[in-house]
Amino acid sequence: MTHRQSKAVILLSGGLDSATTAAMARQRGFELHAIHFQYGQRHEMEARAARKVATSLAAATFVVHRLDLRSFGGSALTDAIDVPKGRSVTDIAAGIPITYVPARNTIFLALALAHAEVIGSSDIFIGINSVDYSGYPDCRPEFVAAFQQVARLGTRAGAEGAAPQIHTPLIAMTKGQIIREGLRLGVDFGLTHSCYDPAPSGLACGYCDSCLLRRKGFDDVGLIDPIGYAQTE
Amino acid sequence: MTHRQSKAVILLSGGLDSATTAAMARQRGFELHAIHFQYGQRHEMEARAARKVATSLAAATFVVHRLDLRSFGGSALTDAIDVPKGRSVTDIAAGIPITYVPARNTIFLALALAHAEVIGSSDIFIGINSVDYSGYPDCRPEFVAAFQQVARLGTRAGAEGAAPQIHTPLIAMTKGQIIREGLRLGVDFGLTHSCYDPAPSGLACGYCDSCLLRRKGFDDVGLIDPIGYAQTE
Repeated sequence: MTHRQSKAVILLSGGLDSATTAAMARQRGFELHAIHFQYGQRHEMEARAARKVATSLAAATFVVHRLDLRSFGGSALTDAIDVPKGRSVTDIAAGIPITYVPARNTIFLALALAHAEVIGSSDIFIGINSVDYSGYPDCRPEFVAAFQQVARLGTRAGAEGAAPQIHTPLIAMTKGQIIREGLRLGVDFGLTHSCYDPAPSGLACGYCDSCLLRRKGFDDVGLIDPIGYAQTE
Repeated sequence: MTHRQSKAVILLSGGLDSATTAAMARQRGFELHAIHFQYGQRHEMEARAARKVATSLAAATFVVHRLDLRSFGGSALTDAIDVPKGRSVTDIAAGIPITYVPARNTIFLALALAHAEVIGSSDIFIGINSVDYSGYPDCRPEFVAAFQQVARLGTRAGAEGAAPQIHTPLIAMTKGQIIREGLRLGVDFGLTHSCYDPAPSGLACGYCDSCLLRRKGFDDVGLIDPIGYAQTE
């Protein structure tokens, strides 16, 4: 008897969270269809990391979708303004950070919704997390619930009674828990890239918000991060 | 005393509905910031028409945002499949048409939300209409209400208590009413372009769903459409 796997659309940034999310979707039996958004990041390392992660998890497809969010401006991740360095994890979680990209997850989920509809998928996985990134409005569970309604009401599938489900398996996990779960599922974190501002060598800077949260996550669970850092002292 | 106008983001397709919507926003005192989405339409006439409409309504800014929805496929408006011709208006309103683009209005509104946040606008105007296009799930009032929640919960402005408002002034109007309102506000419909499949001459085909609805709208109010058609018999 052959069994046709259900397809899942996975938003793959190239970072640790989305790699773990993809592994969790695979663990649940889905065929992975990865989508990476290139939105004016200042380096292409994220796309390369995302592709490696997709390959390592045997994704059925991997698509890079280019978006010109620079024409809108409004964030350290797309503009030529300084990424904050060396902040405390408490500061990172408080307030809306300068690295907030306006409506980013709304845009990403909208495009994922279109992708899901076209390939005949009813499941979208996104690695958003409200613990470390509590300052981002579009990482909160209530935002996800609101977008779920949009997915139900704004699509052909939803109108026909089979709305795409938005899965956020990491939403309430700490970084340490995410790392443990990823390792348990065989994710190779050496392939992932989290840094907002890598050194010319390609090494992660070690001190942007994303590096700090990642390093603290590995520290918290007493594990060694397989990637190198330009500076950690 | 000087008075600073509030900014409104206007989704401008180049068609009759969005031109009227823009005129209504101007009438309400907003400064217009127009955004046009180029998403793999098979001709550039829509962008040119949108620019002319923006200029004629004295928009403060006009931005073209390019999106590659072709990588997703899934619609007659982005693929090389035949646009339906010569259908009845009843048929057009029934079911989900082949010209449905997956999650299109969700994508457009998500990008408009980012644009609004960046320019400091709290008002987004979109000319969606649930009378003529009742078959499009993302033209219904309940879809707009759901997206309004996403705008409230997924943005910095919303988190700070000033969520962008989604305005859909045409939602319950007939095409005839839209035409009358546009003319009352001085819209030059000769600048607009509605056809899904124009002739090589650039004239509207006269028989795609969009041309048929437009022609019927002018007929219903006993007015002459200022644009030419390749074929009307």
